[in-house]
Amino acid sequence: MGKKARSSSCEVPVKTVKKSRSGNRQYRYGGDFKWRGVKSGRYKSEGGDWAGIARQVLIGDRGETAEFHLRYFEIEAGGYSSFEKHKHEHVVIGVRGRGKAKLNRRITDIQFLDVLYIGAHTHHRLYNPFQEPFGFFCIVNARRDRPRPVKK
Amino acid sequence: MGKKARSSSCEVPVKTVKKSRSGNRQYRYGGDFKWRGVKSGRYKSEGGDWAGIARQVLIGDRGETAEFHLRYFEIEAGGYSSFEKHKHEHVVIGVRGRGKAKLNRRITDIQFLDVLYIGAHTHHRLYNPFQEPFGFFCIVNARRDRPRPVKK
Repeated sequence: MGKKARSSSCEVPVKTVKKSRSGNRQYRYGGDFKWRGVKSGRYKSEGGDWAGIARQVLIGDRGETAEFHLRYFEIEAGGYSSFEKHKHEHVVIGVRGRGKAKLNRRITDIQFLDVLYIGAHTHHRLYNPFQEPFGFFCIVNARRDRPRPVKK
Repeated sequence: MGKKARSSSCEVPVKTVKKSRSGNRQYRYGGDFKWRGVKSGRYKSEGGDWAGIARQVLIGDRGETAEFHLRYFEIEAGGYSSFEKHKHEHVVIGVRGRGKAKLNRRITDIQFLDVLYIGAHTHHRLYNPFQEPFGFFCIVNARRDRPRPVKK
């Protein structure tokens, strides 16, 4: 997951994504936790040990110069992210439903607008043991190390 | 607004802010657009040309190592931020009510979960011409240049 330019097929339908010469852009929220001009994709392009997650990259996939990326992840009922560790930090903001995070040996709940800071090298997984989708923003450094799997 | 350590009086009431040795922290949303353990403060410590804004620093004020900061700003009815420019980018996410942004000569609306990317050097101001508070997350690089005022 290093920083790399991606040629995305969701590059600016002009009606929905307003982009100016200065680099300003606006992604309108279209309801149902979707943003106009932003495609939902796979959580990861490779590897196992995860289930039922979709990813929308809101900021970071289109040549933005900010030193961070903003993504929206949604975990369906019963789904979970990889149990992994890395040097870079996560900031998670609960947006839809509720879910849980395993941080090393600790379990915590995440609900609407709760803010969770996952520090460097923490063994972590986000998961959804509930019946409704669990959606959250996740902010990360633009330049970041590759996650490494952790044994359960 | 350079990166600097701040000794904040809102440093971790342990009952509300869960902090582990790994640096993990959780700020519970307490309703009414307030987070437990996070104080609301002034938008800026100096300068004029703004009115009716409060700031909560969610991530960035307590020695976090991430390369970005997360703040929540709330502009009361009739309030506005400084009209200014700087090299660093902003990512704004509408959370409460609705508001407007002036980006160079363009005006745009910001509503719930709309995502706005304000590129480097854009002349910008956020403001609230409506009757209800306008609240938004604002993500910035941790290391950033000082804003410079722009004439209207």
